[in-house]
Amino acid sequence: MNMLREEAMPRRPGKVLSIASHANPRIKSIRALAQVKQRRESGLFVAEGLKLVSDALQQNWPVRMFIHRADAIDQPAIAAAAARSRARGADILAVSGEILAKITRRENPQTVVGVIEQRLIAAEAIKPRADSVWIALERIKDPGNLGTIIRTADAVGTGGIILIGPSVDPFSVEAVRATMGSIFHVPIARLGDEHFQRLREGWSGAVVGTHLSSRIDYRAAEYREPVLLVMGNEQSGLSEALANACDQLVRIPIAGEADSLNLAVATAVMLYEIRRNHISL
Amino acid sequence: MNMLREEAMPRRPGKVLSIASHANPRIKSIRALAQVKQRRESGLFVAEGLKLVSDALQQNWPVRMFIHRADAIDQPAIAAAAARSRARGADILAVSGEILAKITRRENPQTVVGVIEQRLIAAEAIKPRADSVWIALERIKDPGNLGTIIRTADAVGTGGIILIGPSVDPFSVEAVRATMGSIFHVPIARLGDEHFQRLREGWSGAVVGTHLSSRIDYRAAEYREPVLLVMGNEQSGLSEALANACDQLVRIPIAGEADSLNLAVATAVMLYEIRRNHISL
Repeated sequence: MNMLREEAMPRRPGKVLSIASHANPRIKSIRALAQVKQRRESGLFVAEGLKLVSDALQQNWPVRMFIHRADAIDQPAIAAAAARSRARGADILAVSGEILAKITRRENPQTVVGVIEQRLIAAEAIKPRADSVWIALERIKDPGNLGTIIRTADAVGTGGIILIGPSVDPFSVEAVRATMGSIFHVPIARLGDEHFQRLREGWSGAVVGTHLSSRIDYRAAEYREPVLLVMGNEQSGLSEALANACDQLVRIPIAGEADSLNLAVATAVMLYEIRRNHISL
Repeated sequence: MNMLREEAMPRRPGKVLSIASHANPRIKSIRALAQVKQRRESGLFVAEGLKLVSDALQQNWPVRMFIHRADAIDQPAIAAAAARSRARGADILAVSGEILAKITRRENPQTVVGVIEQRLIAAEAIKPRADSVWIALERIKDPGNLGTIIRTADAVGTGGIILIGPSVDPFSVEAVRATMGSIFHVPIARLGDEHFQRLREGWSGAVVGTHLSSRIDYRAAEYREPVLLVMGNEQSGLSEALANACDQLVRIPIAGEADSLNLAVATAVMLYEIRRNHISL
């Protein structure tokens, strides 16, 4: 799926509804998106806040429902985003602050929430540009880490992210929240181990992993492009299979008493090193 | 307070108790440490897991209570840490897994939890070594960010962390959890704006802040030691007063669509840049 393609099919404008009851089936179905099973079955997810819903619209992600606090529709930016969503087929739901709190499980909810169709890219769509860097994450567990990595990947201009093996869902509320909107900018694929090995075999540049037992300093490694950066799980690091799939294993040195770095921090330090001679102001 | 000093005073060994009821006043008082008010009044905090409690013991932080799942005391490592805690005056509490879940508000709690005395350093104790880096954080709000920064600060060998203005409590469960034990290694001070300005005036090295509007690349700045790195709040960045207090404002470039980096990520990228020629494997 081309994430930047304008939608070709015109859609019928969505409905405009006012919902007062927690027990409304739509509200129930939106709340159910907190569960990974419901997200998987529906292919939908929740994004909180006008900024994120606007990012979704701008990147042409299909917004299915635009939920706002009833009294906030007077605000021009919210009215405009609602109109734009509706023109593309989203239903507009006016609700109370209390219902928004229920949906987002927050005491002070945002005034706008979107229900949006998930998008992953297929293995075949991973076609690294010659000067790009891609990130492969093995069995990542923490949604905040994944969201933060997506945000950093966006900031350094990464080609995309590849989730290997069972990993946390990038479309959980916590992950989406931590991306600060970058979920709509960074292509994400999910690959099984076998698919990943095939990708790795055809990779023309350096495949670099981080490993606490490596003796190669991350500042001394050779990052021949396109670079595939491979990062392991929070607790156990890279599996043996993935470590063996790398051309080079490097280590970010630790001077103090800490055993290791947070995964999102380590990924960021690696990405800024790999892109050191690319990124400029 | 010297954080590395061996405790001079011998203590009476603590009591050994078995507690079966959630309603026990001790359990209630431990659970109350989830509230910042209770932590402030008592001067205590909760650290989860044998690793953290062992770190506390090794760094001579006063462990007041050592709470363990009753059936786990057969494990030699747990028994040894309990004995060491008790010899230093901690009470040993054997409880059910259910009570541990209540204390930590987790479905799958750790088998060991410690109640430990908080330690902050005084302004006068901030005496930067000639080749060191200190981190000043202004009005930081997210406990996970603060914990992660403490962990990274430990990893790069920072002199310490200075919290300026009202900020999140470094002794909240979420912050302590994110430090992965580095809370016991990194000196932390809390300073009001005035105290900070006085510290800044006497600072002999570079005082560097990050600012999105700066045109100086973080790779091009001069980090004359000792370095004081000043980082602003998650939402609003540095206040004008703090920005004016810096010798240099630098920017970490952003190549993609993201507006900014996560605060813990930006701090890590800065710290590894500042320490670039110091840290080795």
